[in-house]
Amino acid sequence: MMTGPFAPPPRLLMGPGPITADPRVLRAMSAQLIGQYDPAMTECMNEVMALYRAVFRSANEQTFLVDGTSRAGIEAALVSLLEPGDRVLVPVFGRFGHLLVEIARRCGADVHVIDVEWGRVFEPEQIAAAVRSVRPKVLAVVHGDTATTMAQPLADLASAVGDSDALLYCDATATLGGNDFATDGWGIDVVSAGLQKCLGGPSGSAPITISPRAAEVITARRRIEAGLRDIGDDEPARPPIASNYLDLAQIMEYWGPRRLNHHTEATSMLYAARECARLLLDEGLDAAVARHALHGRAMVAGVQALGLQVFGDQRHRMANVVAVHIPDGVPGEQARAALLADFGIEIGTSFGPLHGRVWRIGTMGYNARHDAVLMTLAALEQVLRAYGTNPLPGGGVAAAKEVYG
Amino acid sequence: MMTGPFAPPPRLLMGPGPITADPRVLRAMSAQLIGQYDPAMTECMNEVMALYRAVFRSANEQTFLVDGTSRAGIEAALVSLLEPGDRVLVPVFGRFGHLLVEIARRCGADVHVIDVEWGRVFEPEQIAAAVRSVRPKVLAVVHGDTATTMAQPLADLASAVGDSDALLYCDATATLGGNDFATDGWGIDVVSAGLQKCLGGPSGSAPITISPRAAEVITARRRIEAGLRDIGDDEPARPPIASNYLDLAQIMEYWGPRRLNHHTEATSMLYAARECARLLLDEGLDAAVARHALHGRAMVAGVQALGLQVFGDQRHRMANVVAVHIPDGVPGEQARAALLADFGIEIGTSFGPLHGRVWRIGTMGYNARHDAVLMTLAALEQVLRAYGTNPLPGGGVAAAKEVYG
Repeated sequence: MMTGPFAPPPRLLMGPGPITADPRVLRAMSAQLIGQYDPAMTECMNEVMALYRAVFRSANEQTFLVDGTSRAGIEAALVSLLEPGDRVLVPVFGRFGHLLVEIARRCGADVHVIDVEWGRVFEPEQIAAAVRSVRPKVLAVVHGDTATTMAQPLADLASAVGDSDALLYCDATATLGGNDFATDGWGIDVVSAGLQKCLGGPSGSAPITISPRAAEVITARRRIEAGLRDIGDDEPARPPIASNYLDLAQIMEYWGPRRLNHHTEATSMLYAARECARLLLDEGLDAAVARHALHGRAMVAGVQALGLQVFGDQRHRMANVVAVHIPDGVPGEQARAALLADFGIEIGTSFGPLHGRVWRIGTMGYNARHDAVLMTLAALEQVLRAYGTNPLPGGGVAAAKEVYG
Repeated sequence: MMTGPFAPPPRLLMGPGPITADPRVLRAMSAQLIGQYDPAMTECMNEVMALYRAVFRSANEQTFLVDGTSRAGIEAALVSLLEPGDRVLVPVFGRFGHLLVEIARRCGADVHVIDVEWGRVFEPEQIAAAVRSVRPKVLAVVHGDTATTMAQPLADLASAVGDSDALLYCDATATLGGNDFATDGWGIDVVSAGLQKCLGGPSGSAPITISPRAAEVITARRRIEAGLRDIGDDEPARPPIASNYLDLAQIMEYWGPRRLNHHTEATSMLYAARECARLLLDEGLDAAVARHALHGRAMVAGVQALGLQVFGDQRHRMANVVAVHIPDGVPGEQARAALLADFGIEIGTSFGPLHGRVWRIGTMGYNARHDAVLMTLAALEQVLRAYGTNPLPGGGVAAAKEVYG
């Protein structure tokens, strides 16, 4: 076998994520491993818990990492909360809402869906009405759906849910760190995320936070696994959690003071998650959100000046990604491939009804940056010209620079 | 928040795993990310598939990574193969056999167990008799159980199973790369592993290989997820797989030519897995197995010369880890802590009936090395003396050096 070390080509990842990682995060991952029960490891894990409490803006004791991609965090939340037959309500406004539906169905839940057209979000009253009618155990909602670039307003959700006692679960993968997010302030019970969007790290670790009320629901289903169970450990009164790997009751014990053995911690991803949070908090959450807003605005001004039409309800767009209609006559996938091949810049297409109809351009994490925005606009202008549209020479860059002032 | 970058203390991890990673693997992880559908990423993923076919000694097309720790690979295999009510037979000879039982039960399977005392393995005829009596759909067995250091002989398993049609699943996390393992030669249908043992990488990626027969069983349960389903995609005839994240039918489509979107690949862990396999194959599988045998023998000779008594049936011990009885009067956990605090060397204790009774000392992956073995023996001699045993001065190191010749 003559394979050499992998040498990735130089890329500027300006799609909907994953995006180029902050080199400091990659550097943090090159630190050597330590043992799972090393005192230094315990300290590192406790620091990670504290860091993510700040990132999630939550006082939840139960704040830690699930060892998998953001999708693992979603499934861990739903499979740990939902027993077969439990009612769950999912407001779907893009592909990742469908993913919540899919996962909840596999949990055996009784899944109720409300829909809006892609490119729009729900009015709080629409969700409140559905909650009154369905009376779900769990209301599961995506914050920002990168498929459509929309962000569902969540600040009023808890009051919309009112006295229904529903637990609120939110997938904040696409928004956390680049848009306002207040777990406790908004009354959300469980939030999960990933590193590969505004946090500027690689996919493979899913930060999660769990309110005391949700933790109690999960803990009632706790079963210590065969091989570790002691005499005196109770069997749960509720149906056990269908997954062992994504069993949050066990993972809480693993991260908690008892440090009960579960999986073997993915230490390099732990280091990455720690560094992502540390850099974000070092910058300041508000400053990071403002940075995403600024560079997002610059990108939007730029693409509009290149003659591209933005997609969806702009009042509810995430700061960190914009979708633009592929101009008539432009072969979208060829143009995207040319941008990659000639300039090393990646942008995305979308899913379902938007596949082949829009491009998605991200400005997030490490790439929510002046030079990344201007370089993308300069290259996009060249590609648009090559594929027969007639963009104003220098228009995209100039419009972005005007935003920067 | 005043937290600085994480600076792990220097450690030599000589326990049952995770062990010190090969620095070349950590370096591979510091490569910058590329997009999920970048042609260079497709090429990298295809290379990883080819590399792991060689590592598993298998021609299985379906050979790839599950994005999680080795436990995620186990659960992916079992949840994808087992439908509720399916019979599964698990021969348990240590803690990780109990884990297979635990996971299979959560799949809703009808789980049948045979046991041997910890420290022993099964005769092939014991397993064959149980297969004849249970007639399981799946026979699930751990190859090497680090809890006891035993490795179940698997070469005769397929013939023991005979004409029963049972699918063979094996957890090879602890042994792969450091002990003979022949997926196709031994007729095993599904094998999963991790990087953190003999492969010399961090935990967080689970290589897996799936025979055509097992792939067919899994594919019959395939359901394309909501949000990606096209008109014309069939609903499965069989009960769907209970997990979305660990659904091997979907993950096969993600790694296959269709490249159907599933999770966001954990790219840095992919880089790590690639480098682990590349380094192992560059050394040569036979050479790596011989290296583990040599350094394992040296460690055993050394600990015996220090007056320690090895645990379990030595004819069936894994090459890469040995358990020794904690001498009478020695406070096992204090001695282990002293070894870590004074010498930076980590060894392990064990689980269940062996907790506090044995130490487990590994020589695997990057640490299956002359200097790592001698340093461990030298430090262990000091600690044993400090805790009141009377080891022969220099005896451990001398005995190991005699093995090295």
